[in-house]
Amino acid sequence: MLEAIGESMILRHLLLPDILDLVEAGRLNDVREFLAAQPAPEIAELLTALEDRERVLLFRLLNRHLAGEVFSLLETPAQDLLLKNMAQEEVRQVIADLSPDDRTALFEELPAQVTKGLLSLLSDDERKRALTLLSYPDESVGRLMTDRYVTIDPQWTAAQALDHLRAVGTDSETLTMTYVVDAKGRLTDELRLRKLILAQPDTPISKLLDGHFAALRSLQDREEAVQAFQKYDLFALPVLDADGVLLGIVTADDILDVAEEEATEDFHKLATVSPLQMNFKEASLGLLYRKRIGWLAGLVVMSTFTGLGIKLFEDAISAVVALVFFLPLLIDSSGNAGSQASTLIVRAMATGDISHGDWRKLFWREVGVSAAMSLTLAFISFFLAWAMGGLQVAFVVSLSMFAVVLVGNLTGTILPVILDKLEFDPATASTPLITTIADVLGVLIYFSIATLILQI
Amino acid sequence: MLEAIGESMILRHLLLPDILDLVEAGRLNDVREFLAAQPAPEIAELLTALEDRERVLLFRLLNRHLAGEVFSLLETPAQDLLLKNMAQEEVRQVIADLSPDDRTALFEELPAQVTKGLLSLLSDDERKRALTLLSYPDESVGRLMTDRYVTIDPQWTAAQALDHLRAVGTDSETLTMTYVVDAKGRLTDELRLRKLILAQPDTPISKLLDGHFAALRSLQDREEAVQAFQKYDLFALPVLDADGVLLGIVTADDILDVAEEEATEDFHKLATVSPLQMNFKEASLGLLYRKRIGWLAGLVVMSTFTGLGIKLFEDAISAVVALVFFLPLLIDSSGNAGSQASTLIVRAMATGDISHGDWRKLFWREVGVSAAMSLTLAFISFFLAWAMGGLQVAFVVSLSMFAVVLVGNLTGTILPVILDKLEFDPATASTPLITTIADVLGVLIYFSIATLILQI
Repeated sequence: MLEAIGESMILRHLLLPDILDLVEAGRLNDVREFLAAQPAPEIAELLTALEDRERVLLFRLLNRHLAGEVFSLLETPAQDLLLKNMAQEEVRQVIADLSPDDRTALFEELPAQVTKGLLSLLSDDERKRALTLLSYPDESVGRLMTDRYVTIDPQWTAAQALDHLRAVGTDSETLTMTYVVDAKGRLTDELRLRKLILAQPDTPISKLLDGHFAALRSLQDREEAVQAFQKYDLFALPVLDADGVLLGIVTADDILDVAEEEATEDFHKLATVSPLQMNFKEASLGLLYRKRIGWLAGLVVMSTFTGLGIKLFEDAISAVVALVFFLPLLIDSSGNAGSQASTLIVRAMATGDISHGDWRKLFWREVGVSAAMSLTLAFISFFLAWAMGGLQVAFVVSLSMFAVVLVGNLTGTILPVILDKLEFDPATASTPLITTIADVLGVLIYFSIATLILQI
Repeated sequence: MLEAIGESMILRHLLLPDILDLVEAGRLNDVREFLAAQPAPEIAELLTALEDRERVLLFRLLNRHLAGEVFSLLETPAQDLLLKNMAQEEVRQVIADLSPDDRTALFEELPAQVTKGLLSLLSDDERKRALTLLSYPDESVGRLMTDRYVTIDPQWTAAQALDHLRAVGTDSETLTMTYVVDAKGRLTDELRLRKLILAQPDTPISKLLDGHFAALRSLQDREEAVQAFQKYDLFALPVLDADGVLLGIVTADDILDVAEEEATEDFHKLATVSPLQMNFKEASLGLLYRKRIGWLAGLVVMSTFTGLGIKLFEDAISAVVALVFFLPLLIDSSGNAGSQASTLIVRAMATGDISHGDWRKLFWREVGVSAAMSLTLAFISFFLAWAMGGLQVAFVVSLSMFAVVLVGNLTGTILPVILDKLEFDPATASTPLITTIADVLGVLIYFSIATLILQI
């Protein structure tokens, strides 16, 4: 018996040394037998925990059927390693056994040269299928499709349809849904397997159809596919071209992966890390450096403007050095409030909770929230500044706090919308961009208020 | 024909005025008929777009079967509104028609008093089921369960099992998987519906079983359920108690919602927004204020330490005011690098990409990345500072940049691990916490280096 996560990890750690002992002792047949009795997800997890040399060795001990399934569950770097260490015929078999959507995922992540080599190993038919799927744009619904689905004829009875499934269905990716197409291949309806089974055997299919179905377009963004799956609560959605012709299906298990990848990408972008497109643990030092240094360096250059802003008020600072004590306090609060606002909006945009029509209403609500927060923070900072710098400085700091938190917050509200209108991803670096903008504005507001009130 | 997202929105906007016209004209029977022909997800989207009064009116025109399905697709505030505006008997019907997992989700989000009232409307049996599900801890797998699944007997043939499904299956949440339990109710195996269908009718069920299954525990955290679904690529997973007794199943469509909610929670926590637990668009001004002000105010107080740090170096600042120009540049870079590091780690922990055993290896890689980034930024800032403040200041700024980016980065690496060891959620406020810590350390490092080099 198997348990998911947590307990299966314990299982694995207990087994790992035993297997390695068997390998050491050269009892490869025992290992082969042991592995054949394990389910694919457990073997994939086991292989991931091994060193390169042992990973290749163990993978080659899997029988053909299991090898394909395990391979499809591994991360791209592990897949790449295995491909490099297998004979051409072994590679051909593994690639041929992958389902079309897993194959597309592999091909799009490998270097172009390697993909080309792998494509040449496929049969003409399989190569054509692979190239068709690869021809859809990156991150489009088309890339997630599999063409392993079953169509049924509305003229059949439920029993005939089930016989048909028995005859052709072994290869299909999911059998929770069957599809009805017309002579031109256009989707006209879909039928849940559940309905088919629950129907009396002699019921005509046409009686079970309702003419309603939800579908995706092959060129839609894959984020929209996630939202569609959430809305319709289905396990598979059909994919159509512009003429309504059924091209393939997308299944819920792939959508869960897409949802996680998209969220991870947004997390990284918000913190100015360029998308890694691989497991964080597997990323090399050099890759991490390249993905992180760009925005950091750019922000350093942008921060120069904050420095120039401060330079404008050199004399005021010389006169009242105590003003500097409160500089980080003010610009940080402004930046923090702005990050809150932008994160709320960026995430709500990504999940489809808000759309373009909502801006105006959201803006005015945000003005209200900002005002309430600015007042609260102004109140708190008045007492902190009073204790550290006297009553006059307290007035300056408190008034500045009100202004900079308001400005920072509204910057955080507006920036994602502007990025979106300019057709950038609103998640792009918005937190540090807002911090930097809030810095410049904060410095100007703070020292202007100080010069006015303190007459310096 | 229906299309998902994007196009369905257009469809809706075209229909909305027509429906409202019919309502105005008092042609409620026509509206009733029109709605009866629409699928539930479309009606739910339509209701969401309406004003309160119209929403209640239209909902009451739905037939009973549709009403239950539409209700389960609405957000909690909309559900609450409808419940308040229905007669007791109507409420009873809607609640009774919900599937157990949807009912749990509704009950746990409504105020306790309302939930109590609704529970009293259920039949004794249904109330007992509801209370059992509600007795599982918040965010546990138990809360996601439905007890609508089908068990089969290994002694049956495939045809007998299919007959059994036909007899009892209409009410089951998912029919992609059937389960085999022993006399004590312990799960002994699972069988995909697909295998059952593809088998010859006279095949005994026992021949189709393989003794392998993956299962969740009712008390596991729901985040672990998401990871299990990703690992096993299944549409449903069984849930067991400590003795292995089958309690219910969790389906992939709910898991997609959980994955999105958990990611949204982490986004918000990273930006110091307390979990909203509702649609951002529906949140009131007061709620948003309460969810955001706590951490902002706390960080203002913490920032006082930065101010005190600067105060230590009052004389140095008076002597060389130009030092202040570079203060935001340095502390921002330190904070930005730290946020990058912590976001990478927090997200990798949430997705299960890294586990406790990986810390040591990751730490040393991060030291390497930090060193490379610090050197690069020190190099860039040298020239910026040279242009703005002369060669001596450039040395101070450049050296400080190297030190503060290194320190900020390592703080960002270590803080999530410490939060995790202290059993806090590592996502909690880590970005602004790191900014604040980086500020204090940055100020001390920068002005110490300045005092030493410039001899002030």
